[in-house]
Amino acid sequence: MIRKTRLFTPGPTPLLPAAQFAMAAADIHHRTPEFRALYQKVLAQLKVFVGTQNDVLLLACSGTGAMEASVSNLTSPGDRVLVLTAGKFGERWVDLVKAFGCQADVVEAPYGQTFQLAAIKAALKPDTKAIYLQASETSTATNHDVQAVARLRDEVAPEAILVVDGITGLGTTHFDVDGWGIDILIGGSQKAVMIPPGLAYLSVSEKAWKAMDASKNPRYYFDLRKERKNAVKGESAYTPSVALIAGLGAALDYIAGQAGGDLEKGRIALVNNAITNAAATRAGLVALGFKLFSPDSPSAAATAVAVPEGLDSSDVVKALKSRFAAVIANGQGSMKGQIFRVAHLGFFDYLDTVALLAAMEHIAKDVLKLPVEYGTAVAAAQKVYAEAAKA
Amino acid sequence: MIRKTRLFTPGPTPLLPAAQFAMAAADIHHRTPEFRALYQKVLAQLKVFVGTQNDVLLLACSGTGAMEASVSNLTSPGDRVLVLTAGKFGERWVDLVKAFGCQADVVEAPYGQTFQLAAIKAALKPDTKAIYLQASETSTATNHDVQAVARLRDEVAPEAILVVDGITGLGTTHFDVDGWGIDILIGGSQKAVMIPPGLAYLSVSEKAWKAMDASKNPRYYFDLRKERKNAVKGESAYTPSVALIAGLGAALDYIAGQAGGDLEKGRIALVNNAITNAAATRAGLVALGFKLFSPDSPSAAATAVAVPEGLDSSDVVKALKSRFAAVIANGQGSMKGQIFRVAHLGFFDYLDTVALLAAMEHIAKDVLKLPVEYGTAVAAAQKVYAEAAKA
Repeated sequence: MIRKTRLFTPGPTPLLPAAQFAMAAADIHHRTPEFRALYQKVLAQLKVFVGTQNDVLLLACSGTGAMEASVSNLTSPGDRVLVLTAGKFGERWVDLVKAFGCQADVVEAPYGQTFQLAAIKAALKPDTKAIYLQASETSTATNHDVQAVARLRDEVAPEAILVVDGITGLGTTHFDVDGWGIDILIGGSQKAVMIPPGLAYLSVSEKAWKAMDASKNPRYYFDLRKERKNAVKGESAYTPSVALIAGLGAALDYIAGQAGGDLEKGRIALVNNAITNAAATRAGLVALGFKLFSPDSPSAAATAVAVPEGLDSSDVVKALKSRFAAVIANGQGSMKGQIFRVAHLGFFDYLDTVALLAAMEHIAKDVLKLPVEYGTAVAAAQKVYAEAAKA
Repeated sequence: MIRKTRLFTPGPTPLLPAAQFAMAAADIHHRTPEFRALYQKVLAQLKVFVGTQNDVLLLACSGTGAMEASVSNLTSPGDRVLVLTAGKFGERWVDLVKAFGCQADVVEAPYGQTFQLAAIKAALKPDTKAIYLQASETSTATNHDVQAVARLRDEVAPEAILVVDGITGLGTTHFDVDGWGIDILIGGSQKAVMIPPGLAYLSVSEKAWKAMDASKNPRYYFDLRKERKNAVKGESAYTPSVALIAGLGAALDYIAGQAGGDLEKGRIALVNNAITNAAATRAGLVALGFKLFSPDSPSAAATAVAVPEGLDSSDVVKALKSRFAAVIANGQGSMKGQIFRVAHLGFFDYLDTVALLAAMEHIAKDVLKLPVEYGTAVAAAQKVYAEAAKA
């Protein structure tokens, strides 16, 4: 039997063929006018993709590198910062700010939930230097309300820098970066922008640039001020990841092309695509008898569901791979075995969603021994899609 | 909305990524040891893929070029030949043998049907020089019984050369080429072997080689004896289609790799894959209320269904393209508007099939206004797949 490998993971996501070919063709030197033209074009596109007038920078690193840059460039040892954590990536913020000597006020929510705004308000202090959170907590497939956090910041600690890990939030969430005052918004290449891992990008507000001058934490490779100075000339401070940048340009061209060449509209369509596929997937998996892991604030980047008591989500992950070559994500850390996650961010379409749900029906029936009527999950997804297509 | 372009057409078929990359990398000269090694490797693989001890040759042309070679190399003006025709490609055989001055005995079957063996037997004469037919008539998605025709040949006209257009039959039908005595079996690159158009291949029996010496029809580019002489040295008579040959090698590697490196087993698995996907598609489309166009002898290369009286299959083709970027084939010639065709040959898997059926449910409901219960076609296909997976 032919089985095409299909990634349904929240990073890496399926590669855009046009980006793959652009990467293969990227046989250029990075200190030439050709590269400078490419780099400036991609940086300009990224501003539209992020949706901001702020500078957007590219770094040759994974998303975690840009998270580190957002700590090392903006804080000094002993600074008070607020960290919001409700999953493995929130915990990464806690580890990072501690690694750079910050005094961390931590607001937690249980896995699968988002924060109580009252708890955030109580934890914000007038001397809070920065706030760190995820827009979408990938490990639990939960959305956090960035706009609400920004409003609380304005109210209680207006000087605080708002740093948002949008690694799976970008391309799956409608942000008003400048309107809400998001000072740093971080993205990664292997997510909504349809290329392999290896690049991070982040927008930086004027307020964040000013704060950097006061920061006493050490940084060299991730010195954002150096990157900004070079970016103006169309260069990177250190050797850039040339092929990934070429691929990123092709992917942003594709996203624009989906809306007649208008990248802003293309970004909005991409977000709506993720929202519709996420809603269809939730409907399908619930129709099969799974419980949403994050029912109150589900992410559009991925959907996490709990397997019934006594069953192991690892069996679902393994069987989908061995029977259909479809790759989904298990739970991370203590959630392993309890939940599985199906992604919608980036180069996924509705037919991917129904294909995955049809495969999941076989697994639910044959592996988990659930009472499955064939077509149930697919039909539930079809109803959601039909409604969305009407709108 | 993201919509991935998906071909469900009986040629071109979806490209295998590994073949695409091999084609992109094929920057070699064709009169070098590197090319000779590649060519000999691919010719050896093709023998296994066709399933014969006969020579297999490659030609830089479409399948029709190899069909012409099978006429021009084997016949002389005035020769009596038998042509079996039941669709647009059967008609091509008729046109070809007439173009080369043969006296054609023609056995016809209506579109969507296969031949009456009695009619073939009656038309075969002791002086019939050659028999031309399709294994799979792509225009009507109908299988013809090559083994039965071979037996009639053995009985009535044992000297006749049996020429089979297997362009969509290869990779979708189990042939015993040498056992049945198929003298020429023709394949095309854009079919089961997962690469773009531009290459044809054909197996040639000893009996056919002998017949060529007597043929008085003119041929130059398609002179098969010249190709055979060169092939022994790992060369082609004229400039070969290097990138396609590299892609073909990668595709045959992939097919072997699906069966632990055994190309013969891989070919059998590929044929069974098409058979299962065809059966699942038939079940799904019938469950939606469509009538099979070729119910008695359906091809595993493609499935053709008739749209209900008063409806136009062109609307289905157009709506699938515009709403889902899924490309299926309309009827050809007089069948246009009456039927549509969905392919299964080559790089298609079960999840492609269920995705197409889910999309078809939307089209049947919204465009053809048929009474559709979501999930119906998918569920019917799932039952077929589950049975096949058990076996």
